[in-house]
Amino acid sequence: MPYEFKLQRRVEFFETDAAGIVHFSNFFRYMESVEHAFFRSLGHSVMMRHLNPPIGFPRVHVACDYTSPLRFEDLVEIHLLVREKKPKVLSYLVKFINLSANPPVEAARGRLTVVCTTHTPDGKLTSTRIPQEIADQIEVAPAELLA
Amino acid sequence: MPYEFKLQRRVEFFETDAAGIVHFSNFFRYMESVEHAFFRSLGHSVMMRHLNPPIGFPRVHVACDYTSPLRFEDLVEIHLLVREKKPKVLSYLVKFINLSANPPVEAARGRLTVVCTTHTPDGKLTSTRIPQEIADQIEVAPAELLA
Amino acid sequence: MPYEFKLQRRVEFFETDAAGIVHFSNFFRYMESVEHAFFRSLGHSVMMRHLNPPIGFPRVHVACDYTSPLRFEDLVEIHLLVREKKPKVLSYLVKFINLSANPPVEAARGRLTVVCTTHTPDGKLTSTRIPQEIADQIEVAPAELLA
Amino acid sequence: MPYEFKLQRRVEFFETDAAGIVHFSNFFRYMESVEHAFFRSLGHSVMMRHLNPPIGFPRVHVACDYTSPLRFEDLVEIHLLVREKKPKVLSYLVKFINLSANPPVEAARGRLTVVCTTHTPDGKLTSTRIPQEIADQIEVAPAELLA
Repeated sequence: MPYEFKLQRRVEFFETDAAGIVHFSNFFRYMESVEHAFFRSLGHSVMMRHLNPPIGFPRVHVACDYTSPLRFEDLVEIHLLVREKKPKVLSYLVKFINLSANPPVEAARGRLTVVCTTHTPDGKLTSTRIPQEIADQIEVAPAELLA
Repeated sequence: MPYEFKLQRRVEFFETDAAGIVHFSNFFRYMESVEHAFFRSLGHSVMMRHLNPPIGFPRVHVACDYTSPLRFEDLVEIHLLVREKKPKVLSYLVKFINLSANPPVEAARGRLTVVCTTHTPDGKLTSTRIPQEIADQIEVAPAELLA
Repeated sequence: MPYEFKLQRRVEFFETDAAGIVHFSNFFRYMESVEHAFFRSLGHSVMMRHLNPPIGFPRVHVACDYTSPLRFEDLVEIHLLVREKKPKVLSYLVKFINLSANPPVEAARGRLTVVCTTHTPDGKLTSTRIPQEIADQIEVAPAELLA
Repeated sequence: MPYEFKLQRRVEFFETDAAGIVHFSNFFRYMESVEHAFFRSLGHSVMMRHLNPPIGFPRVHVACDYTSPLRFEDLVEIHLLVREKKPKVLSYLVKFINLSANPPVEAARGRLTVVCTTHTPDGKLTSTRIPQEIADQIEVAPAELLA
């Protein structure tokens, strides 16, 4: 059962800032990209409009630690690992490896905690169990990978 | 009747790029900001969800000419002028004046053409007349301001 | 001595996503805006190019907890509080209050930890003491505000 | 000699807005991506720091016409064509084809005009001839492709 996904991405110019490095907020966009690509790799989209009512995965907690800057045209490996799986909650660890550095270095390490939500008949957002077909496909990564 | 709106904005760090200047795509975000503030100044929102069916103003044509870069913390005057008003279409000219330059200089000049749209019962987007209450409030700017 | 800064900001359309709410990554841009406005309120810029060598404040750790979504045109109070002050490190707490909710609600709460850095003669980034004139102006917020 | 470049890209969630479609400003970021990928395909980067003085390609004019919206997870072909080549100026046409539509449809069509620039000894930006090694590699696309 899958517990990880890797994506490679080249830093775009519009992702940099006047300090010459990737703006720190963009690491969260990269985290979202790999989370969504992970879902697609399982045959799902994070926007499950075909379900009735539709479900989604808004974030409740996110964080990032930065150790080495990324620059324009750097090739980055974005490595998502499932850190925790609860009936309504998924938590991910995301490692950013700068493959353009020699040797490659870890540039940052992020965390995303998302809650499965749906809408009540009166339009309010409410948490709900992760659909079984998705929960069954995902497992927590081995402890040594999460260290 | 109003034909213009002015907004001041200080350049944010996340709007700059590795060349040390505001990324060219962000001028279109500034144009959107002033367009929406103009609508609010008339007592409206560009997302008219209270109308049934709701209407919106997607862009059909946009352009920008750049003459002088904007940098972090520059104070910018964003000056919107109504360039054209048709039953279903509004067209704007937007002048960007860098007030932090001495003397102030025009940094860029943009154009937005938006179409009033609504949804057909089967969910398709279709153009529609601008609601009378809005059309009645807007007029085309004098030619000398549009030069 | 200042330990806080408040900023009001109206949610822009381009900050929303297809879920109809402010994209979670944009809360970090809001945090940066208030941090920089705080520095300007003290008479400084976060990019201190006039110092030789110039100093900056890259992030080493950031986090955000989300409790209630922000939507297009919501008016948001962004409230920065100094949480920690060390010789080379500043840490902030940022509270997001949605003033368009009735009554106003806390939408999110973020944290930024930044390190004062400069460049060595060979171009490497290295941590350095916060300039005395800045350190002298900043104090840690009272514990009850940080709760 | 190369006169075109094609790139495929899947729409990211953070590129959408509350109207459920790709924000119009992001088409300019896609245009930049394909322009930079085109340069890399020729063995160059748009940031030529190894030249002395370094050169760059800031935009002087950009435009986009929108015909059909792009949505989250749509697969898009971004097709760059060289429209004009002058000693100091390059102009591109960029066609956006939504490959997730059945049949594929043109979603938008953009234009970028960039000027080769360098810095004078006193730090001013000034236009300069495109380096011969680059100019020699690029040719204008056949007229039928530009129609």
